[in-house]
Amino acid sequence: MKQEEFMNHNKEHRYCVIMCGGVGTRFWPFSRTDKPKQFLDFFGTGRSLLQLTYDRILPLTDPSRILLVTNRAYYDIIREQLPDVPPENILLEPVRRNTAPCVCWAAHHIYAIDPLASIVTLPSDHLILRESEFHQVIARGLEFVEGGDRLLTIGLKPNSPHTGYGYIQRGKPTDVENILKVKSFTEKPNVEMAKVFLSTGEFFWNSGMFMWRADSILKAFAKYDPETATVFDAGEKDYPTPEEMNFIDKAFPNAPSISIDYAIMEKADNVYVETADLGWSDLGTWNALYESSPKNSDRNVTQNCKVLASDCEGTLFAADADKIIVAAGLKDYIVADRGNALLIYPLADEQKIRQVVNDVTARFGEEYV
Amino acid sequence: MKQEEFMNHNKEHRYCVIMCGGVGTRFWPFSRTDKPKQFLDFFGTGRSLLQLTYDRILPLTDPSRILLVTNRAYYDIIREQLPDVPPENILLEPVRRNTAPCVCWAAHHIYAIDPLASIVTLPSDHLILRESEFHQVIARGLEFVEGGDRLLTIGLKPNSPHTGYGYIQRGKPTDVENILKVKSFTEKPNVEMAKVFLSTGEFFWNSGMFMWRADSILKAFAKYDPETATVFDAGEKDYPTPEEMNFIDKAFPNAPSISIDYAIMEKADNVYVETADLGWSDLGTWNALYESSPKNSDRNVTQNCKVLASDCEGTLFAADADKIIVAAGLKDYIVADRGNALLIYPLADEQKIRQVVNDVTARFGEEYV
Repeated sequence: MKQEEFMNHNKEHRYCVIMCGGVGTRFWPFSRTDKPKQFLDFFGTGRSLLQLTYDRILPLTDPSRILLVTNRAYYDIIREQLPDVPPENILLEPVRRNTAPCVCWAAHHIYAIDPLASIVTLPSDHLILRESEFHQVIARGLEFVEGGDRLLTIGLKPNSPHTGYGYIQRGKPTDVENILKVKSFTEKPNVEMAKVFLSTGEFFWNSGMFMWRADSILKAFAKYDPETATVFDAGEKDYPTPEEMNFIDKAFPNAPSISIDYAIMEKADNVYVETADLGWSDLGTWNALYESSPKNSDRNVTQNCKVLASDCEGTLFAADADKIIVAAGLKDYIVADRGNALLIYPLADEQKIRQVVNDVTARFGEEYV
Repeated sequence: MKQEEFMNHNKEHRYCVIMCGGVGTRFWPFSRTDKPKQFLDFFGTGRSLLQLTYDRILPLTDPSRILLVTNRAYYDIIREQLPDVPPENILLEPVRRNTAPCVCWAAHHIYAIDPLASIVTLPSDHLILRESEFHQVIARGLEFVEGGDRLLTIGLKPNSPHTGYGYIQRGKPTDVENILKVKSFTEKPNVEMAKVFLSTGEFFWNSGMFMWRADSILKAFAKYDPETATVFDAGEKDYPTPEEMNFIDKAFPNAPSISIDYAIMEKADNVYVETADLGWSDLGTWNALYESSPKNSDRNVTQNCKVLASDCEGTLFAADADKIIVAAGLKDYIVADRGNALLIYPLADEQKIRQVVNDVTARFGEEYV
């Protein structure tokens, strides 16, 4: 493949991979194993987070070039929520792994269809408020990675010393505005370090959104994560044929559970960051949802439902639309009610929710999680 | 009617009137207008409070002599819950009034069927733990009222200076053990007075359970509450005929809204109290339910549902049986979840719940109450 071919290829080679296999434990009880957060209409807009992700990327590609990588359990709900995506574009993982196997498989699949492909990889469960800025960032980024063997991540301008995000330190600039070499990655820093990061202006939140050419990321796997590469290279003759799923069913469980950041991005020397301000939240936690939601004069947030609150402050109320919550005297709480589970928990303790979900499963069974 | 006839009459003249038309606002959101507290399986025993009341009195009478006075809206649910009670024994009030009209109508109805009738009148939504003591108290009380023109109320040995109950002061003893003349009635005293009441040993909680002969209570209405008496006397020829309901539909709304205590018991000079210790609670409030429920080592009460509580104390959790509540950091709260409504409220503020229910109705509509 020569560089000129990439430079001349048009937008029909642009693919999008939406990762939507997560279980969203931290958002229990809204997020449930049978319907995790990405499939929920979180904001009562009539569209799930996955559908919003799809709607957002659609202007830059075509349903036939949007792929969904997910767990087998979610096939039906994806067909229902995204009927325009061809069924063969839904890549079903037989077991849960981290993001590296997902990215590697999708890259193989797409490369076999179109060796000139460039790919934007997106999480399915983030909030992005500035849609047209998003379109510009993706278009500029794809053009940048199509122009060379480059791995690009989107780094978001931080607005607080958040300790739940990874941070990317920008390095040398490139010819393209807002795209720079990456100097360092730092996973979830402590608050002191996060404050320093924020004050320097050099650090950006790691969004989990990536762009690269299919050939570039496959090359990077071969070099930096040979274990994963070996698993998926073995299926080369099967992508994208009816045999692919048989191969995946056997091979996929052998892939290591490792994130794309750890497997590739933190190791490779051709990694770039495109800085952006997208009105973004990863909605990874109740706190993130609280922060990104409009508040009333008592700093309470009402998510979807009806609330009659007295003497409540800084509290997030989330329930189904037809539910009423009457509460008094709660300060900085999460009140989240869905189906057979109700959570009433201090927002400050939300990191314990993952453990709580484990406890619930152990004591009361799978039907509650 | 001669005294001898009453003395010789057997248990087939014993009737029971269960009052079950209340709306139970204070127990919102468990108690709802379409299914108030008396129709709920409060303790997860498989029987509603009404059914438990019925089960409790059944050994002393027969389904054919158990009458239910209720609001028209609850006919279907009563038929469903008490299929053995003949439909004609369900007296349907066309509008909501207090207890005096209910008692007066039921007495007329029963007297027309059986002029020798004695009647035990019971609320439908109380908790009684000591069932065999209850049977003895009722049997002894009925015998007492069958023996003369006497109005008898059950007074319960108080175990705390409760300010939500009425108190009855006992007077001179009678020939029958534990049955005494009533010296005074006091509606909901303040806490200082309630403490004095408790310390003297002379005061008993007014249970709202009454016994009398049908002729005695009708005579008392004529004497002490002529307004109510006049309304129901006018239907004498219609009890108990197919014309009765037509008469009631027209006449009942003209009856004053007045309690039997205020209309008769506090005025009459032939009023007696039978003192008892029944393991009783009127379950009138969340606090009453809390007090009468078994507690864990953190003084939390779990009503029916599953709870995973950390750092919670003195809190009452109530929800449907298949619901799990995960909570942290709540002290002395009510957490009550049912259907489309969730209440999270300090137990100490429960007297505000009635107002809350009004607010909910005003702001969000009837479907929430």
